[in-house]
Amino acid sequence: MRILGVDPGLAAMGWGLIEYPNGTPHSVRWGQVRTSPRDAMAQRLRQIYHGLRDLIRETEPDAVAIEQLFFATNVKTAIVVAQARGAAIPATAESGVEIFEYTPLQIKKAVTGRGRASKPQVQHMVAALLGLREIPRPDHAADALAAALSHAHTLKVSRLLEKT
Amino acid sequence: MRILGVDPGLAAMGWGLIEYPNGTPHSVRWGQVRTSPRDAMAQRLRQIYHGLRDLIRETEPDAVAIEQLFFATNVKTAIVVAQARGAAIPATAESGVEIFEYTPLQIKKAVTGRGRASKPQVQHMVAALLGLREIPRPDHAADALAAALSHAHTLKVSRLLEKT
Repeated sequence: MRILGVDPGLAAMGWGLIEYPNGTPHSVRWGQVRTSPRDAMAQRLRQIYHGLRDLIRETEPDAVAIEQLFFATNVKTAIVVAQARGAAIPATAESGVEIFEYTPLQIKKAVTGRGRASKPQVQHMVAALLGLREIPRPDHAADALAAALSHAHTLKVSRLLEKT
Repeated sequence: MRILGVDPGLAAMGWGLIEYPNGTPHSVRWGQVRTSPRDAMAQRLRQIYHGLRDLIRETEPDAVAIEQLFFATNVKTAIVVAQARGAAIPATAESGVEIFEYTPLQIKKAVTGRGRASKPQVQHMVAALLGLREIPRPDHAADALAAALSHAHTLKVSRLLEKT
């Protein structure tokens, strides 16, 4: 099972790929797709769309996991992120990969066991769960890996439930 | 010159095509692409993306005109519209058609001559400018035609400026 986590933003879309042959993550890669503020909005949204489409072709994931939008206090930021998210999601359709959305609460719970964990705590657990010595950078990539881990966790739980 | 105007929303994406061989609109078509609230968000965003891509293939416009997002008082609505907009814009890239963004103010000015025109006034002028007996329905399609007319107007103005 290969899961691609995605954390879309306008300036940078973080991504993280985990491979889960059995219970333990096998190999991990991460990075980000950047767009320039010098380009027009339409151009940047296209870059996000193409960036994710190329990434899916390259990494051939079985599933894509993405954080559901939370309603930020800053409306302007929320709208910009929403547009970037809207551009990223259709890119998954091209390759027929299924996309799964997780709320920030679900991600925190899946990764740390607690819904009220802080961002550094989540990042710390991402590194621990993936057997990494350091927290993956940039932040967008760590968030993307957290989304991927949440999907892996959900699959594991549903398999356990099937067995009972 | 064929201009496709687009008014993206999540439940319905309005579109309107105008043909401008010289100063007067020649032929006009409009409609909307609907998505169902029973489908998941990711599915609906994909439908918007594919809907616009198919529409561009079918109508072969020279340019796409879209209303720039205004910051609504209702954050939740704004975020939903922003996602739909983010999904629509990359669809224009596939066919290499250029996309032009117009603010609500620019659209009102281009269509009615006044930046503070009401929605019914804009719709009334859309019908008048296009030689239609009735206001195009649904509202999303009328808004899409207004965006297309704004682009036609901008082109006309820039041609006039070139001549001076």
